[in-house]
Amino acid sequence: MKNYSLTLCYDGTRYKGWQKQGNTDSTIQEKLEKLLSRLLKQDIEVAGSGRTDAGVHARRQVCSFRAETGLSCEELLSLIRQYLPEDIGAAELHAVEPRFHARLSCREKTYVYRVWNSSDPNVFERRYMCSFPDALDVESMRAATAPLLGTHDFTAFCSDGRMKKSAVRTVKDIRIDRIGNELRFELTGDGFLYNMVRIIVGTLLEVGLGKRSAASVSAALEAKDRALAGPTAPAHGLILWDVRY
Amino acid sequence: MKNYSLTLCYDGTRYKGWQKQGNTDSTIQEKLEKLLSRLLKQDIEVAGSGRTDAGVHARRQVCSFRAETGLSCEELLSLIRQYLPEDIGAAELHAVEPRFHARLSCREKTYVYRVWNSSDPNVFERRYMCSFPDALDVESMRAATAPLLGTHDFTAFCSDGRMKKSAVRTVKDIRIDRIGNELRFELTGDGFLYNMVRIIVGTLLEVGLGKRSAASVSAALEAKDRALAGPTAPAHGLILWDVRY
Repeated sequence: MKNYSLTLCYDGTRYKGWQKQGNTDSTIQEKLEKLLSRLLKQDIEVAGSGRTDAGVHARRQVCSFRAETGLSCEELLSLIRQYLPEDIGAAELHAVEPRFHARLSCREKTYVYRVWNSSDPNVFERRYMCSFPDALDVESMRAATAPLLGTHDFTAFCSDGRMKKSAVRTVKDIRIDRIGNELRFELTGDGFLYNMVRIIVGTLLEVGLGKRSAASVSAALEAKDRALAGPTAPAHGLILWDVRY
Repeated sequence: MKNYSLTLCYDGTRYKGWQKQGNTDSTIQEKLEKLLSRLLKQDIEVAGSGRTDAGVHARRQVCSFRAETGLSCEELLSLIRQYLPEDIGAAELHAVEPRFHARLSCREKTYVYRVWNSSDPNVFERRYMCSFPDALDVESMRAATAPLLGTHDFTAFCSDGRMKKSAVRTVKDIRIDRIGNELRFELTGDGFLYNMVRIIVGTLLEVGLGKRSAASVSAALEAKDRALAGPTAPAHGLILWDVRY
């Protein structure tokens, strides 16, 4: 058995996210496992670097799987490309050391959230940006990122109230850049909880509107109370940008 | 009655082109005329700068129409934006002099044809670029644009064999640029015949593949024979880029 890492990109619009949900064909993991199992004539289980929610995209997602095959990586990659649907792309395939595991070995992730901050039309990127035409104070949003940086219990910024595992994560960087009419949030950390990036962005947008202060962000974090953070920003503006090992 | 110019952009993927085809809801002109007639409570006829074929996009299309209304341009534009589907955008609306006509007054158009020249995945722009992974000789394609520049009868580069009007057009510029994996064709002229840009691109791609010479492009043009030009490149790579008055 060889161990492989496969680098993917996908347009999440028509999928119920990464993780398989029984025997449907509506998640990226299922699409991939079915295809690989068929191509390699064996049961293949794929581990992603992490789940992406329904409707969330990936510019660079990494997954790993074990398989027994005489095909070279080049041959297998070419086959995979031939059969993947056009909204899932395979960028790279490599044989990797046996211990490599896309989720467990993952060191750092970057997510990007794209906001179209204008009432001008945005027809060509409408599937990949969240439209939010109201005026936003970028400086106050930047200031409000400060309490989120570093290692904290992010329970207030997680949608899963029944989560039993640790909610402690380290957020290494939050950048907010204006690129023309686009406002781009770039978050880097060792990992993110369920909906965490979207709740952080939803909270920062409230700061940008003047509806809440940077202090209220600290307060939500300290209280570990989801109700004190902002709304979950829509899925389609979010993209898993990069994954590092 | 006031005369208006409306600047649009659209993702042509799900439309049968610009021009109305009876009482369906499948073209951009129909969508627009129905919406304007409903909003302004009068029959509105819209003239576009030109037709775009089924599946072709527009970054900047201009149309004109006459209407009687007490609404300001700002109010009307805001209403139009509210009701247009998300794949058609209204960028600008202006009151213009009575003689202005989007098609008759049009002086120059630029079309862009985008080719994804790689076997790497291109999931996010797959609707707006034509995938063509084979190696292409850009220098020989550039050389083959020379016979097309200037004023010619472009019958060989038109799909409409029964066309009765003049097929003489002036092509002012053809640029071919490589931007990473993308090959971008930019054609500027006083007007283009039915499928003309797509046939020019299909012919130049054959030159890039080494299947035909620059001389064969001259020969097709002189013979005015559609059969001597190359295939019509797929619609979804084409975008009406700009329209000048």
